[in-house]
Amino acid sequence: MKLQVAIDRVDLDYAVKIANQLDSVVDIIEFGTSLVKDYGLIAIKNSKLNLQHAQLLIDLKTIDEGPYEFDKGFDAGADILTVMGASAVDTIEKVYAIAEEREKDMFIDMMEIHQNKREEISEFSNAIYGIHHAMDAETGFDAVETVAEFHHMFPKISRISVAGGINLEVAQKLAKQGIVESVIVGGGIMKASDPVAMAKKFMEVMN
Amino acid sequence: MKLQVAIDRVDLDYAVKIANQLDSVVDIIEFGTSLVKDYGLIAIKNSKLNLQHAQLLIDLKTIDEGPYEFDKGFDAGADILTVMGASAVDTIEKVYAIAEEREKDMFIDMMEIHQNKREEISEFSNAIYGIHHAMDAETGFDAVETVAEFHHMFPKISRISVAGGINLEVAQKLAKQGIVESVIVGGGIMKASDPVAMAKKFMEVMN
Ligand SMILES: [Mg+2]
Ligand SMILES: [Mg+2]
Repeated sequence: MKLQVAIDRVDLDYAVKIANQLDSVVDIIEFGTSLVKDYGLIAIKNSKLNLQHAQLLIDLKTIDEGPYEFDKGFDAGADILTVMGASAVDTIEKVYAIAEEREKDMFIDMMEIHQNKREEISEFSNAIYGIHHAMDAETGFDAVETVAEFHHMFPKISRISVAGGINLEVAQKLAKQGIVESVIVGGGIMKASDPVAMAKKFMEVMN
Repeated sequence: MKLQVAIDRVDLDYAVKIANQLDSVVDIIEFGTSLVKDYGLIAIKNSKLNLQHAQLLIDLKTIDEGPYEFDKGFDAGADILTVMGASAVDTIEKVYAIAEEREKDMFIDMMEIHQNKREEISEFSNAIYGIHHAMDAETGFDAVETVAEFHHMFPKISRISVAGGINLEVAQKLAKQGIVESVIVGGGIMKASDPVAMAKKFMEVMN
């Protein structure tokens, strides 16, 4: 199981600095939607980000104009880009084709979509399906249970990622459960006094 | 009926220059999602954009982390910010509260959402409801007919905006129809050899 650290709501310089420090520790570094909307893809592309080990996921949250955004996102250095499951199916098909052609990954954000739409978009065989609640949602979220349910409903989907209040205990349970390809941790690492040390702790309990 | 010109997929310097030129001609200037994702809100805030007459809509397409994005978007100078109807209802409620408190406007992008969700989010009385198809969609779009249907379905919604292949003829028909508060024109103006002259033509046929 891979560890993805989400970096959000910080200065771009700090994001780049901490990403370069986390590079050798974690599997995937996410530049969150807040960094995209605050600073833009051009600034990310021109930054001193220099990952030698970890993959870069840019949380673009594309919901329309898919080809434009995916071209710009991959040009900015991303290995993985996100598209909303709530997009038109045409959008998801178009960005999937781009990801496949560039030998990169498409991550479908499954937030807030209903069963028939889920089924409609469940057959992108190389896609990563990301499950989480809205950060703004006022209801609870049980990652382990939600993953089990999703896997039961879509046994053919092989690449699953989960986010939402993942602490060390939940990360360990998810690793034992053995369903998801990656877990996404944001504040649980980034708000620790020593994010690199905390990322190492997550890697330990997961392996 | 107001004219909103959407500026997209151009250099930020050009976007700012043309926006300042269009300021006295049109009602609303949209800085499109592509400008946000390419350059970021901080660069927009620090740009030489100086609107004296037109309102600024920033097409944030918020789908999560609503309060963070809306605070940043209004801080960047927007009068109107967009949120996806596909967001969690909690997200829409939260950004609506921010827009109301700051005496600004929330624009709900109604793309790709189904009837029960539409109904669920139809009672934000000061919100602008934006109807359009995905730009990536491969199907046609009849703005006049779609507006009539939407109005018939939601007669209580008083603020409606429409986008999607609006040319001079369609703009004139929409003005006569008298339902929408604003029409959004992108390429129809921005790709003209003289965008300011074309914007004036739109204003003429609409009034
Ligand atoms: Mg994120
Ligand atoms: Mg737009």
